[in-house]
Amino acid sequence: MGRIVMKFGGTSVGCLDRIRHVSRLVESEVNSGNEVAVVVSAMSGETNKLISLVDELDSDEFKQGQITGGDINDEYDSIVATGEQVTSGLLAIALRRRGVNARSWLGWQVPFRTDKSHSKARISKIECSEVGISMKQGNVAVVAGFQGISDDRRISTLGRGGSDTSAVALAVALKADRCDIYTDVDGIYTTDPRIAKDARRLNYIAFEEMLELASLGAKVLQTRSVELAMNNNLPIRVLTSMVESGIPNPGTLVCNEDKNMEERVVSGVAYSRDEAQITLLNLADKPGMVAKVCSTMANANISVDMIVQGISRSDNAANLTFTIGKRDLNAALKALKSSKESIGFNDIKFDENVTKVSVVGIGMRSHTGVAQTMFEALAERGINIAVIATSEIKISVLIDAEYTELAVRALHSAFKLHEKRANPQT
Amino acid sequence: MGRIVMKFGGTSVGCLDRIRHVSRLVESEVNSGNEVAVVVSAMSGETNKLISLVDELDSDEFKQGQITGGDINDEYDSIVATGEQVTSGLLAIALRRRGVNARSWLGWQVPFRTDKSHSKARISKIECSEVGISMKQGNVAVVAGFQGISDDRRISTLGRGGSDTSAVALAVALKADRCDIYTDVDGIYTTDPRIAKDARRLNYIAFEEMLELASLGAKVLQTRSVELAMNNNLPIRVLTSMVESGIPNPGTLVCNEDKNMEERVVSGVAYSRDEAQITLLNLADKPGMVAKVCSTMANANISVDMIVQGISRSDNAANLTFTIGKRDLNAALKALKSSKESIGFNDIKFDENVTKVSVVGIGMRSHTGVAQTMFEALAERGINIAVIATSEIKISVLIDAEYTELAVRALHSAFKLHEKRANPQT
Repeated sequence: MGRIVMKFGGTSVGCLDRIRHVSRLVESEVNSGNEVAVVVSAMSGETNKLISLVDELDSDEFKQGQITGGDINDEYDSIVATGEQVTSGLLAIALRRRGVNARSWLGWQVPFRTDKSHSKARISKIECSEVGISMKQGNVAVVAGFQGISDDRRISTLGRGGSDTSAVALAVALKADRCDIYTDVDGIYTTDPRIAKDARRLNYIAFEEMLELASLGAKVLQTRSVELAMNNNLPIRVLTSMVESGIPNPGTLVCNEDKNMEERVVSGVAYSRDEAQITLLNLADKPGMVAKVCSTMANANISVDMIVQGISRSDNAANLTFTIGKRDLNAALKALKSSKESIGFNDIKFDENVTKVSVVGIGMRSHTGVAQTMFEALAERGINIAVIATSEIKISVLIDAEYTELAVRALHSAFKLHEKRANPQT
Repeated sequence: MGRIVMKFGGTSVGCLDRIRHVSRLVESEVNSGNEVAVVVSAMSGETNKLISLVDELDSDEFKQGQITGGDINDEYDSIVATGEQVTSGLLAIALRRRGVNARSWLGWQVPFRTDKSHSKARISKIECSEVGISMKQGNVAVVAGFQGISDDRRISTLGRGGSDTSAVALAVALKADRCDIYTDVDGIYTTDPRIAKDARRLNYIAFEEMLELASLGAKVLQTRSVELAMNNNLPIRVLTSMVESGIPNPGTLVCNEDKNMEERVVSGVAYSRDEAQITLLNLADKPGMVAKVCSTMANANISVDMIVQGISRSDNAANLTFTIGKRDLNAALKALKSSKESIGFNDIKFDENVTKVSVVGIGMRSHTGVAQTMFEALAERGINIAVIATSEIKISVLIDAEYTELAVRALHSAFKLHEKRANPQT
C-alpha cells in the first residue's frame, strides 16, 4: 500500500486502444492497493498539429507584411495545452468504464503554479492538497501534464517534454513513494541497443549517473525531471507501456546510489552527434585569452562544452579547440569573426563531423584506471581523440563521427557492460 | 463610441483564412472607437470530432461488456470545451498580428459561473469585472463560447448552440450596447428563402416575434439567447460574416417593438417539420380527461404542443388530437398504450407526415382579420387544417406535410410579405 505517480507519454496514449490499455495498467496498480495519480501527455501528433496551426497563422501574416510586434506565447500555451486536456478526460472516462473511480485535473485545477515564461515556464509550486484528498477518497487523479497556471491566471506550458517534469514534481508534492515513467523503451540501457546488440537493460542506476547520461545524449528522461527527483530523493522507474499481456518488464529504477551500485565502475556509454568543434589558430599565448573566447560565446548565448588548449612548438603560438551545439555553429563563427582582433587569433577551423562519446559511472570515484582502459580501447582501434573532458563520474572524448559506432562498441566491451554480474544491481 | 459583443459561429471561424477575416471585422469595430468583446465557437467540425472520440471510447467499452455505471458528462465537458479554447487563442493571435491588442478568456477565466448540469449547464452568473477592466485598457476580449465553470471548479458546457447564449449573457453582464451575432445567413427573413423566392430580409424584428419564430422552427438564433436579450432589453443584430469586401450587409436588428413596427401586422411565416400528430379515439367525454393525457406525456418527459378536442356526433364520444416532437413519437405511443385503461380510450392513430405552419406578428394584437386571411388563403388552395393553435402574436396550423411549400408561399403572399412598405422598419 503506497502512493505512486504513473506518467504516460504521447505514444502510450496515442489512440483510443492505447488509452484503454493504459486504463488497465492503472487499474492493476489500484487493485494492488495503491493510491494513484496519472500524468498524461497529449496523444502523439496532437501537440505538433496544434503548433502548426499557430505557426501557419503566424507565418502567413508575416508574408502579408502585416506582422506587428508582440509576444504570442500566452495564447500559444492556451492552444497547445488542449492536447493534454483531451487525453486526461478520455483516460478518466476509460477508467470509470472499468469501474475505477477517476477524475481529470487540469494544470490550473491542481494547480501547478508557474512563472510567466510562457511556452517554457518553470513550476514554482504545486498546491495539491485537493488532489490528495480526492486520492484518499479512492479516486485516481488523472492529471494533464506539461501545463500549469501562471501568476496572471493564464495557462502556461513547461516546454516540450515537460510532462516528465510535471510527473516528478507532482510525485514530490504528493510525497509519493515512486514515480513510474512509462515510455516506448523498457528501461535504461548500458548503451544504445541499436549500436551495441549486447547492450543490457540496467535494473538500477544512480540519479547522478542518469543525470550525466541524460545530458550526454540519452533521450529517455528529461534532465530537469532527473534533477528534481535527485534533489528530493524520489525513485523514478522507467518502463514500457507497450507490453500487451503477461507481467510487465520491471524497467530500470533510478534512485540514490547504494554500496552495491558502487561495485559497478562504469554503468553506461553515451554518445551525442549534436556537437561541432571549433579551433582558433595562432592565438597570442597570454593570460585571459580563454576567458575572452568564453565571454564572446556567452554574449552570443552559446554554451561552450569541452575545451582544450595546445601549444604549437614551432612558433610558440597557442591553438584553442572547443565544442558547441551543432545548431549554434553559424552564430558562433559569426561572433568569433567579429571579435577576431580583440581575441587575437589568425584563423578559424571548424568541424561538424564529430561525436562526443562518454563513459559514466559513480564507481569511478573510488576506482582508478578507467581513463586508461578507455584510451587503450580507442587507441587499439586507431581512433584519435580530439578533446577530452572529465568530471568525477564521467569521461567524455570527442572523436571523428565516422568512428561513432566502433567507439561505442569498443567501450561497451572494454568495460564488460554486456556481462550480467553476480551483483544483483547491474 | 460604445461597447459591443460580436459572436462568430463555427462556420465563421472554420479555417485559418476565416479566422483572419474575422480579425479584420473585429479590427474595423475597434477602429470605429468601440470597446469589443468577441465570443467564438469551435472551428466547424471540431466539436463533432471531439464528441466522436468520447462516443467511440464509450461505445467500444459497452461492446466489451465492461460498462459500469457512472456519469461521464464532467469529463465530456472538459474534452469538448477545448474546441473553443483553440479558436479563442488563434483569434487573439490573429488580432495581435494586425496590431490590435487582444487576449483570450476561457469560461473559467472570465468566469461564467454555471450549475453542475454538465453538458447542458445553465449560466448562473457572469463575473466579468476583470474582462471589463481589460477592455477599458484597450484590449479586445476574445471569449471562448459555450463553456463555463461549475460550482465544483470543473469545466461545464452549455449544450449545442450554447455560444449564442454565452454571447448574449456576456453582453448583458458587460452592459454592452448591442450583441452582433455573425452567422452564415445575412439576417432574419420573412420566411425561408429556399421556399419563397421573394422572401425579404427584415431590417427590424421585435424580441417576441423572434422568440416565436425561433421556437416555431426558424433556426438562426437559439431560443434561450433571445429570451435573455428580451428580458434585458439588449438589441441583437443578426448578420453574416461571409461578405469578403465592401460594406457588410446591416443584417436584422432584434429589439424592443416600437410604434413603427406595429404597423406591420405579420412579420414572418415559419414552419416546422419536426411534428407528429396523435389522435386518441372514443374517449369517454368526462372532466379531467385532457389533464390525464397531458400528465401521462409529462411523466414520459414529452412536451405536448398543439391540442384539440372533438366530439363525434354519432356516439357522443370524444376524440383528442395533439402534437408532439417527431423524435418523441415512439416513447409517446408506448406511454399512452400502457395508460390505455386509466385514460379510457379505444384506439390510437398517429401521423408523422404533418407540418406546423405559423404566421407571427406583434401587429396581430391590434389588428383583427389575420386568422380570416390565413384560413382563406389555405382554403383557396385546398389545404386542410388538422389543428389550430394561437397566441397573442401567432397563429399556427397543422397541415399535411405534402402541402408545406404551397402553404408557406400562399401565406407569404397573402400577407404581402414580399412587398417593401413605405414604413422603413420592414
